[in-house]
Amino acid sequence: MKPPSHPKELFPAEFGLYTELVGDIAAQLAATAAERDQAGGTALAERRLLRDSGLLALAVPRAHGGLQADWPLILRIVRRFAQADSSLAHLFGFQHLQVASVLLFGSPQQQQHYLQETVAQRWFWGNAVNARDARLRVWPTGDGYILDGIKAFCSGARDSDVLNVSVALGEQPHERLYAVVPTTRPGVQVNDDWDNMGQRQTDSGSVTFDKVLVRHDEVLGPPGPAGSVRATLRNLIGQLVLTEIYLGNAQGALDDAVAYLREHVRPWAMSGVEHAHQDAYAQLRAGGLWVKLRSAIALADDALAQFQQAWLAGDGLTAEARGELSIAIAAARIHAGRLALEITSDIFELMGARATTRRNAFDRYWRNVRVHTLHDPLDYRQKGVGSWLLTGQAPDPYGYG
Amino acid sequence: MKPPSHPKELFPAEFGLYTELVGDIAAQLAATAAERDQAGGTALAERRLLRDSGLLALAVPRAHGGLQADWPLILRIVRRFAQADSSLAHLFGFQHLQVASVLLFGSPQQQQHYLQETVAQRWFWGNAVNARDARLRVWPTGDGYILDGIKAFCSGARDSDVLNVSVALGEQPHERLYAVVPTTRPGVQVNDDWDNMGQRQTDSGSVTFDKVLVRHDEVLGPPGPAGSVRATLRNLIGQLVLTEIYLGNAQGALDDAVAYLREHVRPWAMSGVEHAHQDAYAQLRAGGLWVKLRSAIALADDALAQFQQAWLAGDGLTAEARGELSIAIAAARIHAGRLALEITSDIFELMGARATTRRNAFDRYWRNVRVHTLHDPLDYRQKGVGSWLLTGQAPDPYGYG
Amino acid sequence: MKPPSHPKELFPAEFGLYTELVGDIAAQLAATAAERDQAGGTALAERRLLRDSGLLALAVPRAHGGLQADWPLILRIVRRFAQADSSLAHLFGFQHLQVASVLLFGSPQQQQHYLQETVAQRWFWGNAVNARDARLRVWPTGDGYILDGIKAFCSGARDSDVLNVSVALGEQPHERLYAVVPTTRPGVQVNDDWDNMGQRQTDSGSVTFDKVLVRHDEVLGPPGPAGSVRATLRNLIGQLVLTEIYLGNAQGALDDAVAYLREHVRPWAMSGVEHAHQDAYAQLRAGGLWVKLRSAIALADDALAQFQQAWLAGDGLTAEARGELSIAIAAARIHAGRLALEITSDIFELMGARATTRRNAFDRYWRNVRVHTLHDPLDYRQKGVGSWLLTGQAPDPYGYG
Amino acid sequence: MKPPSHPKELFPAEFGLYTELVGDIAAQLAATAAERDQAGGTALAERRLLRDSGLLALAVPRAHGGLQADWPLILRIVRRFAQADSSLAHLFGFQHLQVASVLLFGSPQQQQHYLQETVAQRWFWGNAVNARDARLRVWPTGDGYILDGIKAFCSGARDSDVLNVSVALGEQPHERLYAVVPTTRPGVQVNDDWDNMGQRQTDSGSVTFDKVLVRHDEVLGPPGPAGSVRATLRNLIGQLVLTEIYLGNAQGALDDAVAYLREHVRPWAMSGVEHAHQDAYAQLRAGGLWVKLRSAIALADDALAQFQQAWLAGDGLTAEARGELSIAIAAARIHAGRLALEITSDIFELMGARATTRRNAFDRYWRNVRVHTLHDPLDYRQKGVGSWLLTGQAPDPYGYG
Repeated sequence: MKPPSHPKELFPAEFGLYTELVGDIAAQLAATAAERDQAGGTALAERRLLRDSGLLALAVPRAHGGLQADWPLILRIVRRFAQADSSLAHLFGFQHLQVASVLLFGSPQQQQHYLQETVAQRWFWGNAVNARDARLRVWPTGDGYILDGIKAFCSGARDSDVLNVSVALGEQPHERLYAVVPTTRPGVQVNDDWDNMGQRQTDSGSVTFDKVLVRHDEVLGPPGPAGSVRATLRNLIGQLVLTEIYLGNAQGALDDAVAYLREHVRPWAMSGVEHAHQDAYAQLRAGGLWVKLRSAIALADDALAQFQQAWLAGDGLTAEARGELSIAIAAARIHAGRLALEITSDIFELMGARATTRRNAFDRYWRNVRVHTLHDPLDYRQKGVGSWLLTGQAPDPYGYG
Repeated sequence: MKPPSHPKELFPAEFGLYTELVGDIAAQLAATAAERDQAGGTALAERRLLRDSGLLALAVPRAHGGLQADWPLILRIVRRFAQADSSLAHLFGFQHLQVASVLLFGSPQQQQHYLQETVAQRWFWGNAVNARDARLRVWPTGDGYILDGIKAFCSGARDSDVLNVSVALGEQPHERLYAVVPTTRPGVQVNDDWDNMGQRQTDSGSVTFDKVLVRHDEVLGPPGPAGSVRATLRNLIGQLVLTEIYLGNAQGALDDAVAYLREHVRPWAMSGVEHAHQDAYAQLRAGGLWVKLRSAIALADDALAQFQQAWLAGDGLTAEARGELSIAIAAARIHAGRLALEITSDIFELMGARATTRRNAFDRYWRNVRVHTLHDPLDYRQKGVGSWLLTGQAPDPYGYG
Repeated sequence: MKPPSHPKELFPAEFGLYTELVGDIAAQLAATAAERDQAGGTALAERRLLRDSGLLALAVPRAHGGLQADWPLILRIVRRFAQADSSLAHLFGFQHLQVASVLLFGSPQQQQHYLQETVAQRWFWGNAVNARDARLRVWPTGDGYILDGIKAFCSGARDSDVLNVSVALGEQPHERLYAVVPTTRPGVQVNDDWDNMGQRQTDSGSVTFDKVLVRHDEVLGPPGPAGSVRATLRNLIGQLVLTEIYLGNAQGALDDAVAYLREHVRPWAMSGVEHAHQDAYAQLRAGGLWVKLRSAIALADDALAQFQQAWLAGDGLTAEARGELSIAIAAARIHAGRLALEITSDIFELMGARATTRRNAFDRYWRNVRVHTLHDPLDYRQKGVGSWLLTGQAPDPYGYG
Repeated sequence: MKPPSHPKELFPAEFGLYTELVGDIAAQLAATAAERDQAGGTALAERRLLRDSGLLALAVPRAHGGLQADWPLILRIVRRFAQADSSLAHLFGFQHLQVASVLLFGSPQQQQHYLQETVAQRWFWGNAVNARDARLRVWPTGDGYILDGIKAFCSGARDSDVLNVSVALGEQPHERLYAVVPTTRPGVQVNDDWDNMGQRQTDSGSVTFDKVLVRHDEVLGPPGPAGSVRATLRNLIGQLVLTEIYLGNAQGALDDAVAYLREHVRPWAMSGVEHAHQDAYAQLRAGGLWVKLRSAIALADDALAQFQQAWLAGDGLTAEARGELSIAIAAARIHAGRLALEITSDIFELMGARATTRRNAFDRYWRNVRVHTLHDPLDYRQKGVGSWLLTGQAPDPYGYG
């Protein structure tokens, strides 16, 4: 085993056909990630980079002109990008989540139309689907529906071409309107009001709808969002994207810490060693962080494989299999989330005070994970796992973005 | 998903051809495990059960009449048995470790002889190889060597047919004599002096050697224990057996806790629920334990797969690949060990004070893991992982049992 | 600072007038604690030692012939004894809890009678007050009440002279009969049925009541158990006894581990040091355990001081002050309980596999804490603390042992 | 106990004579702390507020016109300020550290001169004493010494009146020059180069010395920095300031989280409660954080009391007592540091994603603690505690800021 002179290489990840392309994009994202973290706002150049790569069509079936990659591959690319730039990875992951919405909820005609356009126009999808925000109202009109109000946490809406928009028509899960709305539709205004401590370039601000018309044929379905067991896979993709973002940040943080320690850290006076990388406590700590990261990756990889099986099962997917999958994914997300918080905070013990400059922005890993793990409460996810274990009842797939 | 009325079934494990047999044995071991934990001593009946099952030949190649199972299968059977009975699982795992010693260190003739006998005579192998105990002396004689002195921690020596015995001839790794000695050889005395707080029926006491003759042809080799990169896989099997013991105990503990809670625990007065399994805190805790257990299993399963690849590489195994494998196995063991300690202690929060009777013996899971995780210090294993990460140097495979 | 050749002295504890006596008793208890842990059963000789010491009267006011020690002193003696012998410390602590019941619930006449007898006859008090066990029935009779049925978890009932017995007369807190019954009273049978994994000599088995007569003047009150804010201090003494048991076990465990490491542990081959006590990882771990133990002791000492203030406030104790005290005590118990579990498990990392003999019985510290922390669920205590913090409502003092 | 309508009041802290003044200053600091955290740079207005308060003379003996407060009071004011504004608390704490340097190292004449001026001129002290930075050179000249070079981590140097400057004259601890240099002295340049992720307004950048003259009478001593056991108390004050900064941040973070949850958080859909503060998991978590915080405060309060005893012992302070004190302080710092990291990260679980705006800046607590805990490695401090426990040798008081 040769000495890892470039610690980044300690964590190789292969992406088949896309290996080189993914590596190039990741490198470009990494080069300015710290700086853009400080700036916040919309990452137009990097969004263009993703558009131009063609990878926004990864989840689109070949039949519609897409790349039809397996979900494990797609999601591991999300992980890889998140090592470099958690915000862009998030937008990239959510692109495929919106594509999946069309695949899972849309009629064959809708699939054909929206997915061909996604490929042809290099669409970047945004969303306004946050189920917890009840401020968006809806009422029927002759041609369809009128949307009026506001939604928060609309990741990726800025600079998007189309939006997934969701709003409750009634109190039951199947009474949820889920539509595709061009971002340029009159009355739609994407606000520039995301200025949060992490995930700073995800544009997760609000979208205002001023009496926006949605045509019937823009409403996804049948089957729609609650039309089949299979349709509920969408939420699980969302949970997997979150999981991969955590893993990417943890991995990026550990990579950076190892590289920084090797290049910049002087051994502690009492350590009795010549180089910081020989320090007994640094080695113990680095070993501990690596073991934790690997355990989270192993669990996530299992969940990815299990998801792909469910995806391939198509309409044959049973509620039971879906339930077990959701538990496996919840476990992966909980474990990745909690360990990523730990890892992204503990890396500083390897680097010391001099590493804490804003220019390094090594705290962005923790800030990204800290914000993103709050998407929906991990404690309630964990309760869901425990409830299943103790009662046999799988968690109810509630309708989160 | 149907309610898990038999929580044991929550953790299915398939063992191919051996599924039914393994299930039967596990059930028989489980039936008396608590009682035998209290009694300690040698589990003659259970050892006979294992002998009679034929499974002691799992690692023996078909060419020598054995079952030639893959290592992942063998080691997952160790895990399964450890759920039921950690001591017998240990003895069972070490059986295959001794068989591996013959396969890795022995000449073709020695392999043929010892492995055919293993199958034909249903040999149960013991060992006296603890490298840390320097009290066994050795000197050459005309026909071979004389062994004189004592070795501690000789798991499985009692009621064994043959022993692997190891002793240093010099200070270098390759100057280690590694021999096969029939347990009935004059001068060999297996002492009944193991009475420890966990792993109570592993007979891990001492063996006294009173001027015991070892013939040249009983000394394994070439290649012997340090004759090739491949030979050092033996230690890694040892580490994997330890890992699987931890996992089995953690799983057994969680199974028991879930079953006990469902059958015996009354809801806490302030919980506001009708059944203990609906308790919000019990669910949170159970969920947390399950996630941790699954992460440890996922990491171990990865290590098992990686080990099998190395095994199949034969003499083509490079030092580099062996190094990466050893890191993966160290990670699996560290993670499993630490989480198993946590899980086997935390299960009591699910069960309450009434579960603490000696008859239940639910503390044996923690006691087993606590003893077994001390086999060699996890902190030094973790340092090894960190050293590799920071310096690129794989841990030196030192010669532990 | 001289080298601590006797590590026990690292943790000095002064007990004023009683320093020497307490030290002597602790030494005697320590001498046979491991052996008696294995044997279980009633520790008659050690109970006699406590009786003969006169210390069973520590909580009895001087006016009744007692020693009238402050509660912090009494409870720190419990802690000191628990270092040596957790079971006897428990019995000793519960003695003072029962004396406190008389002081808090009994009329002046009852106090005079029972407490003078406690001193004169060297009474050892037991109890049958477990509020969760509803199997004991009660009905009125001419002279008082008849008790019939059974109670579990009656710590200290065997070899006792008098019992505190509690039973619900109705559903309200004040409808609880709390009486003093001589253990020799016809119909009372103390069963020898405690055989649990920890706290093995606390005789926490069951007591059967076969139509046992309780006279009116044996029923404590007024004020009785719910007659005043002050009366509810009894529960808090119970919680403090638990806390001190945890701390004593943690301290005893760490003392033993330090002493064992210094005397018996050989340095690990890769440590590069001559003595195990110089090992970098042993030092890191030992430091960590010590810091945790000290934090738990500091928090408990604060709670003890706060309790004594409340005790001295007498009937002037307000519900508000009582509420804050109960939170402080809950915090002390939660912290001590959780850290004691960690410490008593982690000590083995300092000692290694050779320390795990049953003769050493170093696992008894963990077993004791594991059993005792289940007295009532720590999670619900913690919820109580959080509820107070978030809502301002102090936990309702429910009626536990 | 009335509902805590103003959660800040849950953590009352009394500061005797200064209670009102401290409260006023803390409120003023709190009002703009989030905003100034974002801006960074020198907090001129807030530094003036501290100057004008007169509290910069808290550590100055009455004999020199100061307030002569006890150290526990001073340090608890540091903690209180750190709840509101960690940077200003740091500067405030270091003011007293520099005053202590004069008291401990300076001759009677130096004490009189520098401390009277401190009171009269309302001096704010800065420092350039970082022992790890060897880039500052020194050589003798007729009148004293010439300093030339640079020092990093010079907290509080900007806008200061005088600086403590330290530089090694030789390799032995006593060969350290420790001098007082007016910040306006020719050749001294305080650089505006601190832009780090936490402690953003501590001005902990560099100071350049361009052949700066230091007169003999400006060199503190006798006794100087290594002239007596007592003199080494300076380092311990530094460690206590760090400890209090951690505690203040943890407390500020928990206060904010409780207030935010009560005012802004909606209950989770599956919680079954009306208000977020009734949520079972929020209560469990809040309780856990509070218990941890209280344990850290209790341990720190013990260390403060022990320090004051040592301070009052004057030249009678023995090396042994100093050693025990240093261990107690190390324990307090380690515990506070590790728990503050945990608490300042975990608070977000109570608040959810909406709380993560930059305007709230709730992440500053974690950023502050994360930076400040790296002052010198906690692992090595912990090793020192363990070394003392295992070997009896107190940590060597090395010369850190």
